[in-house]
Amino acid sequence: MAQSNYSALLGPVLAWIDSHREEALADLQRFCRQPSVAAQDMGMEEMAAIVSNALQDLNAQTSKIATAGYPIIIGHLPGHSQRRLLIYNHYDVQPPEPFEAWSSPPFAATVRDGCLYARGVADNKGTLVSRLWAVRAWQAIHKTLPCNLTFLVEGEEEIGSTNLGAFAAANQEIVKADACLWENGHRAADGALSLNAGAKGILYIELRTRGTAYDLHSSNAPIAPNAAWRLVEALHTLRNPAGRVQIEHFYDDVLPPNERERELLKRFPVDVAERWQSWGVAGTPSDPVAMTEQLLFEPTCTICGIWGGYTGAGSKTVLPATAGVKIDFRLVPDQDPDKILALLRQHLHKHGFDDVEIVELEGGEHPSQSPTDSALMESLIRSARLIYRQEPRVLPRTPGTGPMEQLCQRYGVQVASGAGVGYENSRVHSPNENIRVEDFYLGIKHVAALLADYSAT
Amino acid sequence: MAQSNYSALLGPVLAWIDSHREEALADLQRFCRQPSVAAQDMGMEEMAAIVSNALQDLNAQTSKIATAGYPIIIGHLPGHSQRRLLIYNHYDVQPPEPFEAWSSPPFAATVRDGCLYARGVADNKGTLVSRLWAVRAWQAIHKTLPCNLTFLVEGEEEIGSTNLGAFAAANQEIVKADACLWENGHRAADGALSLNAGAKGILYIELRTRGTAYDLHSSNAPIAPNAAWRLVEALHTLRNPAGRVQIEHFYDDVLPPNERERELLKRFPVDVAERWQSWGVAGTPSDPVAMTEQLLFEPTCTICGIWGGYTGAGSKTVLPATAGVKIDFRLVPDQDPDKILALLRQHLHKHGFDDVEIVELEGGEHPSQSPTDSALMESLIRSARLIYRQEPRVLPRTPGTGPMEQLCQRYGVQVASGAGVGYENSRVHSPNENIRVEDFYLGIKHVAALLADYSAT
Repeated sequence: MAQSNYSALLGPVLAWIDSHREEALADLQRFCRQPSVAAQDMGMEEMAAIVSNALQDLNAQTSKIATAGYPIIIGHLPGHSQRRLLIYNHYDVQPPEPFEAWSSPPFAATVRDGCLYARGVADNKGTLVSRLWAVRAWQAIHKTLPCNLTFLVEGEEEIGSTNLGAFAAANQEIVKADACLWENGHRAADGALSLNAGAKGILYIELRTRGTAYDLHSSNAPIAPNAAWRLVEALHTLRNPAGRVQIEHFYDDVLPPNERERELLKRFPVDVAERWQSWGVAGTPSDPVAMTEQLLFEPTCTICGIWGGYTGAGSKTVLPATAGVKIDFRLVPDQDPDKILALLRQHLHKHGFDDVEIVELEGGEHPSQSPTDSALMESLIRSARLIYRQEPRVLPRTPGTGPMEQLCQRYGVQVASGAGVGYENSRVHSPNENIRVEDFYLGIKHVAALLADYSAT
Repeated sequence: MAQSNYSALLGPVLAWIDSHREEALADLQRFCRQPSVAAQDMGMEEMAAIVSNALQDLNAQTSKIATAGYPIIIGHLPGHSQRRLLIYNHYDVQPPEPFEAWSSPPFAATVRDGCLYARGVADNKGTLVSRLWAVRAWQAIHKTLPCNLTFLVEGEEEIGSTNLGAFAAANQEIVKADACLWENGHRAADGALSLNAGAKGILYIELRTRGTAYDLHSSNAPIAPNAAWRLVEALHTLRNPAGRVQIEHFYDDVLPPNERERELLKRFPVDVAERWQSWGVAGTPSDPVAMTEQLLFEPTCTICGIWGGYTGAGSKTVLPATAGVKIDFRLVPDQDPDKILALLRQHLHKHGFDDVEIVELEGGEHPSQSPTDSALMESLIRSARLIYRQEPRVLPRTPGTGPMEQLCQRYGVQVASGAGVGYENSRVHSPNENIRVEDFYLGIKHVAALLADYSAT
């Protein structure tokens, strides 16, 4: 078979997918019914075995590579073209709590009104299984695949991918594919698939203050330091009310959008008005394109949590001995989390807050940006047009964070994201996480088409 | 009997007290073994009955006056002089939690190494029982009392004395005594009894902010309001780092110390160095007299608690929908909590924080100040010298708060505080609350002597 033939061979593959919907759905339910909550060490070994067995069933050369945490499952599948595509997914899911907010049990994988409800079905078991079934469909019809594939399925994405960087450094022969198809994706309200080629980085820290050795009666306030006030004073130096971070040199490495990225921002602005309405935020955004640029290209300093003293019902006249705040800095190319941490330290020192303790909660994550016109992205766009019969929405990056830099960008591997089976109401990380069953079938077809296109380009 | 004879008659009364120590201690243990936690509605009826019966045993004209909350117990005891002394105490105690921090159960009333351990023994059952036994001693020896007494024992002091003001307004014939002896008191590390004639007021509120209808993924930060940041910004306008409240007109009604009060500050400065050491605060206070003035005469704005977003272990990338803070404003004469609340509202409005909600948690408490040279205070001082053989430490007021204004000052009744049985390690409101048994006996004698002195002056 010549590479250019693959697209012509796609028709029967798509037909096979249509005639195997029930089996594919049942397989996805099987994946979803196995809890795999890394944060709670629940069902992880069983889930790793399910993934590993599924890859072996596809005749993949499968290995389970131990890490300091949960193992990483690798599955190599040979294909006819020279190209090798790395497919990144994860087998862990977020904790399901609060249980009482679910309409059906989070690991029951119940289908209701055309939707499949399960913790992890959108993020990202549905996507993982759709990719496995795309392979199965190609094999069923043509015995072989259009290109070489390497599945990399880690078990720690929801707890910070702590061991992925070390794995990548030690296994560059696995990582250095021609491109990497990232986990997950979703269709917007208008049905368009959202594609992107990057993610923000993150620095997540706590600041902690201590005023006294123990909580005091608040009548001592005139002659005792107050840890909560001290924290408020330190915080107030970090950010102005417009959201601009006040740390010196914080913005030094921030790259503005390039020409192609600006075009995409103009073409596919986020519907901020709709989001504001959903969030209960008053007013109308004046310029959606500018706000989309803000969303994707502005680094932030966000209070994720703050605490100190008495927070129960009613009043307690206590002077808090300690207070703390959790902050995430979302970083954009080319900011470096280690450098930002150093700048934060300098900032606190300069403003007289040497007493404020910085606690690093996780290793930071570098931002990542691949070109939005890579071969893989172009293939994703063309195959999305074919399957969804609709132009996909391509944006430079997601405002979220993923370990793309440490797995791929550091080794020159370009990433494209957004082939997945979620939709705008998938409630990722929330109760009643779900996908539309039809999106699952379309997702299988999209990947099947992608393999053909990527091999042929 | 002529009034001037009472002091001469005191000797046998004190001797009787010495020979009835065991019975008095057993009676105090009985009071302490009855839990009476108003905040938890625990044992309140039983405790009210114990107090009421104890007053009836002294042949007091006793009544239990219903309120919207727990009843107030009144006991009138006739005496020979014209003077009538109102004695204020309360029969409720703080919650005993955390139980595991107690060396013996909080309601076991165990004596260990000369100390009696029990929730409420220092605040203020020990003081109440010492006063009852002073009456009993006078009755045992002389059948009658030096002056008229009215015991007023409420059941809601630890939950804000919510119904005391209405009671006082409706029962002025009870309240309008010649003076009021306030609950409680303690001996400093050097053994000196601490006396005072006033208390700060309080305004206790919550400020609450809302940014979005529900918590968002923190990646939305560039285009979503953050309730925690909003709260920090509002808070920062309220107080400068030196502790000075920035609300316009906040200090307008603050009275500086008068000449007599200044003398007392100079004579009995608080040992701030010792407190700082105990609190783990670095440095040495430069001017203890100035700091004592600060402690007693400066109003404050104290963060008692602050919360918002995720405060558990590790990291969660959440953008908090709501945040809140509990603040107490300690007020000094002649500040008015209602006026301060109005000023706070104006302040938030003026600074563009109309969206910040103010929640009043309890009715505010007015500050209160009686003269430090009232007849009752002079009697307290003289009788303290007699019994403790040591000069008492007289300061204008306590930095704490009590309902003196609504019970007494509003009706022209002067208050003196500090006759009590606690000491510097009594751990009021904390686990292992305790008094020294010897202080309990001295407390009975002090009140017995006070009754003689106050009648004779």
